[in-house]
Amino acid sequence: MPFVSRLKPLASRLLRSARIAHFATSDKSGQPHVIPICFVFDGKHFYSPIDEKPKRTAPAKLKRLRNIRENPNVALVIDRYDEDWRKLAYVLAFGKARILQRGEKHRRAVRLLHRKYRQYTTMAIEERPMIVITPKRIVSWGG
Amino acid sequence: MPFVSRLKPLASRLLRSARIAHFATSDKSGQPHVIPICFVFDGKHFYSPIDEKPKRTAPAKLKRLRNIRENPNVALVIDRYDEDWRKLAYVLAFGKARILQRGEKHRRAVRLLHRKYRQYTTMAIEERPMIVITPKRIVSWGG
Repeated sequence: MPFVSRLKPLASRLLRSARIAHFATSDKSGQPHVIPICFVFDGKHFYSPIDEKPKRTAPAKLKRLRNIRENPNVALVIDRYDEDWRKLAYVLAFGKARILQRGEKHRRAVRLLHRKYRQYTTMAIEERPMIVITPKRIVSWGG
Repeated sequence: MPFVSRLKPLASRLLRSARIAHFATSDKSGQPHVIPICFVFDGKHFYSPIDEKPKRTAPAKLKRLRNIRENPNVALVIDRYDEDWRKLAYVLAFGKARILQRGEKHRRAVRLLHRKYRQYTTMAIEERPMIVITPKRIVSWGG
């Protein structure tokens, strides 16, 4: 866990406890895309499943997969908002994303996600692609 | 207000009431960056000041300004999280960003920001650059 050991306590707490992150990709023309995602962080990688949240299809949903294929460079921010701005904080990770279809890493991520989000227990995320983000650099601010 | 009239009520409500947005830029090498921002939407443009939130300097803070100069294409998402995933929603805007230093538009944005965030009344945002985002496309999901 090369990054976690260097993070401030609040930053590690945010990575462990936050329910959502905001995930930015960019296509090869340089058009960014950003979306809220559910995720788990195992100390080394972030995992986010391609679920189909309640029935509807998000129009922008597959765009992030197309972007990752075109350009694996991504950014992910996990933050805390508070009306007392002395309490604002974020952790920003830059890294590379890839897509796992199946296998032992995929199964492990599914187990971690089931543990974090009871909502996933009724969704077949084990049959869906999983985004894996390997952070190259993590910066944190605030708190 | 070309977009607003076409947005679903929940989407317009989110744009008006959300306290933060997540703002994605990308440098010319295709490395995305994403950060939570305070903003106002006047029905046509999003405005976000370059403030200096409590004392510390965010290491990544000026990166978004450098990115906008290199590549004005940006994305902005405003979302609502709820443990009942049937209530998840987001509004995602793609557009162009530029930086205002001063002038009537800058003053108007400062007034709108002061009205929305009492926190800004003690910060000299009128003396700081302001990011203006002109959306070219807005998509909304959920709710």
